[in-house]
Parts: sequence; C-alpha cells; structure tokens
Amino acid sequence: MNSRIEKLYTYMEENALDALLITLPKHIYYLTGFLTEPHERFMGLILTRGEEPFLLVPMLDAEKAQQVSTVQKIYTHTDTENAYEVLKGHLPSTISRLGLEKSHLTVKIYEAILTTIKTEEVVDIEEPLQKMRLIKSSEEITTIKRAIAIMEDSLRLTLTKIIPGITELDIVAELEFQMKKLGAEGPSFSTMVLAGQNAALPHGVPGKRKVQIGEVLLIDAGVFVDGYVSDLTRTFAIGELNDTLLDIYDTVLKANLSGIEAVRPGAAIRSVDQAARTVIENKGYGEFFMTRVGHGIGLEIHEFPSLHGQAIGELQEGMTFTIEPGIYNSSVGGVRIEDNVLVTKDGAEVLTSFPKELMTIGV
Amino acid sequence: MNSRIEKLYTYMEENALDALLITLPKHIYYLTGFLTEPHERFMGLILTRGEEPFLLVPMLDAEKAQQVSTVQKIYTHTDTENAYEVLKGHLPSTISRLGLEKSHLTVKIYEAILTTIKTEEVVDIEEPLQKMRLIKSSEEITTIKRAIAIMEDSLRLTLTKIIPGITELDIVAELEFQMKKLGAEGPSFSTMVLAGQNAALPHGVPGKRKVQIGEVLLIDAGVFVDGYVSDLTRTFAIGELNDTLLDIYDTVLKANLSGIEAVRPGAAIRSVDQAARTVIENKGYGEFFMTRVGHGIGLEIHEFPSLHGQAIGELQEGMTFTIEPGIYNSSVGGVRIEDNVLVTKDGAEVLTSFPKELMTIGV
Repeated sequence: MNSRIEKLYTYMEENALDALLITLPKHIYYLTGFLTEPHERFMGLILTRGEEPFLLVPMLDAEKAQQVSTVQKIYTHTDTENAYEVLKGHLPSTISRLGLEKSHLTVKIYEAILTTIKTEEVVDIEEPLQKMRLIKSSEEITTIKRAIAIMEDSLRLTLTKIIPGITELDIVAELEFQMKKLGAEGPSFSTMVLAGQNAALPHGVPGKRKVQIGEVLLIDAGVFVDGYVSDLTRTFAIGELNDTLLDIYDTVLKANLSGIEAVRPGAAIRSVDQAARTVIENKGYGEFFMTRVGHGIGLEIHEFPSLHGQAIGELQEGMTFTIEPGIYNSSVGGVRIEDNVLVTKDGAEVLTSFPKELMTIGV
Repeated sequence: MNSRIEKLYTYMEENALDALLITLPKHIYYLTGFLTEPHERFMGLILTRGEEPFLLVPMLDAEKAQQVSTVQKIYTHTDTENAYEVLKGHLPSTISRLGLEKSHLTVKIYEAILTTIKTEEVVDIEEPLQKMRLIKSSEEITTIKRAIAIMEDSLRLTLTKIIPGITELDIVAELEFQMKKLGAEGPSFSTMVLAGQNAALPHGVPGKRKVQIGEVLLIDAGVFVDGYVSDLTRTFAIGELNDTLLDIYDTVLKANLSGIEAVRPGAAIRSVDQAARTVIENKGYGEFFMTRVGHGIGLEIHEFPSLHGQAIGELQEGMTFTIEPGIYNSSVGGVRIEDNVLVTKDGAEVLTSFPKELMTIGV
C-alpha cells in the first residue's frame, strides 16, 4: 500500500469512519497512479477499514487501470449494470460513517449512492484530500516543471507570430496549437490573451480585439502535463508604452519580486500577499490590485494554499503556488506578472524562468 | 417574459412548486440569453410563483448580464458576501417546495443552499429542463448549422496537412487551431483522431501513433459556437485499404443512410438504431457495433433524445441528433460515419454536408 493511501487509513481511524468513497478522477490519480475521465460513467476508489482498497471502474477502463494502478484490486461494471449495486456487492454489509467528496459529487449521484448503500452519517473528505496534496513530492515537482517548460516554450514560439492587427483569439489559437505540438494534454484553464484596456479585466475573455501599437498585451496561460498544471502570466509592450504604463509595469514587477522575497518555510501565508500589496499601495495603485496575490497549483489550477491577505497558516517546504500581483486600471490598461513558486528548505525556488523585464514585441 | 420562462411557471403551477433555482450556466443561457461561466462563484436564475424572475450573479458578471439578459431584474453578490444569504434576502420567507438541478449541483453547494433557505421538499427539475430543450427553435438550428460549418471547414483545412508519419496528436492540434481561427469558442468535446487499429476503440484517446499507408484514419470532432455544438465523424483511407476495410466502410455508410432514412416525425426513436443496426448485422458485423446509434445535440454534446435500441418515445419535428453507426474490429480497424440530423415536418434534414464516400488522403 502506498503512503498516501496509508495516510487515509489513518485518517479513517482518527475520524471513526468505516469507509471512504473517492470519485474525483484527479484524486484517484493521486492515490493510484491511474488517470482517466470516465465522464458520465461511475468510477470510485474505495477504502474500507481493515480491508484492502479497491477500484471500481467502467469495463471500458479496466485494461488501462490494470496496467497502471498501484491499487491492484480492480472491479468493473458494465453499462447495463447499476454501478451502485455493483459497488454495494463489494462492501461490508454495514457502514455507519462514510466519507465522500461533497465538492465533487452531484446531488443526483449522491442520492443514488445513499439509496443503495445505507449509512448513518456522511462526512465530507474534501479537506483532508486537499491538505494531503499541499506538500508536493519530488516527482510532482518534476512534472510541474515539465508543464512550465512546455508553457514557456509555447509562449516563446507564439511571440514570433504577434504583429499589430492580430486578434486576441488568433493568439489563443496559436498558443494552444503550440502547447499541443509540444506535448501538453491541453490548456489547464481558459487561455487569456487581453490587449490594451481589456488587460485591465482580471477575468477578461479574449475576443476580436486587435493588438495595437502603444498598448500592453497580457497573456495568462498554462498547460496540463501528466495531470499537473502550470500557470504563467507575462505582459508585453507592443511598441512603446507611455510613462503611466511603464510605471505600472515597474511597480508590478517590484511587487512580484517582493512577494517572492517573502516566501520561506514558517512565514505567514498572508505575508506574501502583504509584501506584494505594500509595494503597489506605496505607489498609489492600491485600489487597482483587487485580487489575491496567488493560489496553490498542482493537480488543479486552483488548490490550497490560497494566498490572500487574511489567509491563516504558514508556508511549508514543498508547497507550490502562483505569485501574481497586478494593477488593473480600466482607463489605461492592466499589467500582471505571474510566476510559479516552490517553497524550499530555506526560501523559494521560482520555477518559471521566462524573463520578467518589460519585453517589446510585434514591431 | 419569454415563452421558455412562461413554460417553467406553468410547470411550477402543475407541480405545486413554490420556486425554481436554476444554476447550470447553459440553462441560464437558454432561459435568459446570458452565457457565462462563473466558475466557483454562485450564479442562479430564480423563479418564484407570482413574482418576476430574477438573476443573482457575481458582481464581476453584472455588466455583461445587464447588457444581454432578457430577465431584467438582476441582483449581485460580491466575494466578501455569502451568496446564499444574499439569495435568501430576495426570496419570500417560506418556500415549501423548491425545484433544483440535482445533476448539476454539488452536494456541498446543495447543503449550503438548504442550510440557508429552509424548505420542506426539494424536487429535481433536470428532466423538465432537458425536455424543454428537445425541440429546437429556428434560431437554435441556425446556430447549430454555424457550428457544423466551422467544423467542416476546419476538417477540410486540416486534411491538407495530413501525410503519412504525422501523429494523431499533431492532427488534433491542427484541427483545434483551425476551429479557433474560424471563430469557434473551442472543441465541444475531446477531439478524437485515431489511426489504424486505434480507430477500433469507440472511446479511444489520441496519442503518438503515426498515420500509415493502408490504414484508416477516424476523426470525430465538434465545436461550440454561441454555446451550441456540432459533432462530426468521418473515416478516411490513407492510401489503399484492403477489401475487409472497404467492405466495412461500405457497410457503415449504408447503415448511416438507412438510419437517416428512418427519421420522420412520429417514428419510434428506437427505429433509427434498429434501421442502422440491421444493415450491419445482415453483413455479419453485428458484434462490432456495440454503441447506440446516436444522441441529441444542442447546448450540450449529449442531450435528449438518446437513440438506442430500447429507447421509448417518438421522434418529433425540431429534434436534432447524431446518427453515427460504426464497426469496431480491433484486428483490422474501425469505421464510423456520423452526421447531425434535424427532424423536419415530413422527414429528415441532414445538417452535415461533408462528403461520405470514402476519401483517400495523405498520398
């Protein structure tokens, strides 16, 4: 049994749970090494106290699961069977307390499970699973680095195609083409390419706006590689920028560096946000930095820790997250500079290596 | 109030429901014209008996909602507020029976809603919503046709790049690049490009396998345009195919045409599957056609009706679905030919127009 699954058995003991039913595909991957997307078909990893863990997978996935899963007991169900009845057949007759991922299961599936498998109490196990994933193993860090390398190479190749007049959506198409050509599974979130004033929208959506001289171009993108994400933002100058934009860029870069500087094991999580925010506030741009400074990355694009100004807790060695301060002023444009950072034994390793000095492109 | 929302008020009356809370973004789009993806933020359309409907959206989305939503009463919540408390503030004090989408809501959000908004009974409204969407309006059909046109143009442009030695994943990258360049929001499902024996997997995943002379190449892809999907499969010959593959192709094409021939208002839904399946069985390939013949398309890639051999009910004018028989023989390869079909007043309109005669490419 691998150490991650062992931890969950300990968690079950400590919380007097009789069984855990894990259904989020990324959690099954994390715990067994088997990554698949079963879509509407049921798939679960089941841990019962005192019993060997087992996987229940759709017949279609059985062969792949057998090849890669470290959990070796694998049961299957077919499309003509009721998957929950099949599940019940492999469970002990009484389960008083059952752990489930309430943030993942839909009400419909949850009700179907509880109609079939009688239990007295259901406990949400999202938090222990998320917390397990907080500290990355060296294998996980290697995979994240590969996701970053592909993202950075995709960006480099795409920059050569950017000329005034190209639209935001054309750049998205080019970036996502390069990601796939370089071996990524695909974008890890909706690729964001925002030109000029659009860049002032922290949640903007790329459209038909054209890249124009004298404006900024903000590119926020990442990829999935072997299930792990990268998440990179750089803001470029299309030709020369005015002094306001240059000052904003300079401030965001200093805030980014200041945030990174605050990272070390034992530091308060909130201190990273505060370090970056102070730089921006001191230059009078405080009102234009209305997001948190960063978020955890790993199997999902947003995971623990959340780096906001009221965050509770301390940084620990092995955490990976973004540091992404920005200034979003709708009258002039927006700038964000986002890195991916690993907490090391005595500080931070910046995993992203794409240059951060203002780069002029397209002219 | 638009006629779709009116139908839901009637449904509430008939089912003695006091309120409906609709949260699936595609359903909100269908009912209000406002399409957005709020991610982890709460968004809902609320219908209460005897009251005007209203939208509750994250502050970030408020401006866009105000511009396009036909439901004009729009409330907002910010990230520092509890969205369910805000919702409660806009609801009558007692709601005995509440309708929700149980296939969409996670248990976590469901419990948060029910902790805040006390109600005696909760009813799943997934089915009435799905059923409403069965019959497409002329505007919806026009949008589906645009999604098909972009898919077919993407395929045409991609075919010119296919030569022996190119990998499945390279073709995926090229197809998805063309989709976006032509104006699609993106693929409507995981683009499937399968070469040779891989094409014999109805749920295969593209990889590094190379296109080779003498093999088939199966491409199953679709796009989203204004929220609506297309879904097209064609199987190509890379150079000359052997007689077995030629016979399989010919059989699948006849099954496809036979399925289409069975489509008319009032025909049993199952008769479409049976018509296609009979052709394949008569040629002795029955065991290699192990999927249903098709599925509804519209706002989602799989919606009502499901066209399988035991389906209950009749076809009605305005339904749109795929017809996609296939023969999947792992020792030789697989062939699928998939069209998108509309039930018309007196038969079927095949919305896809990409040629179906066996096309040789790459040489």
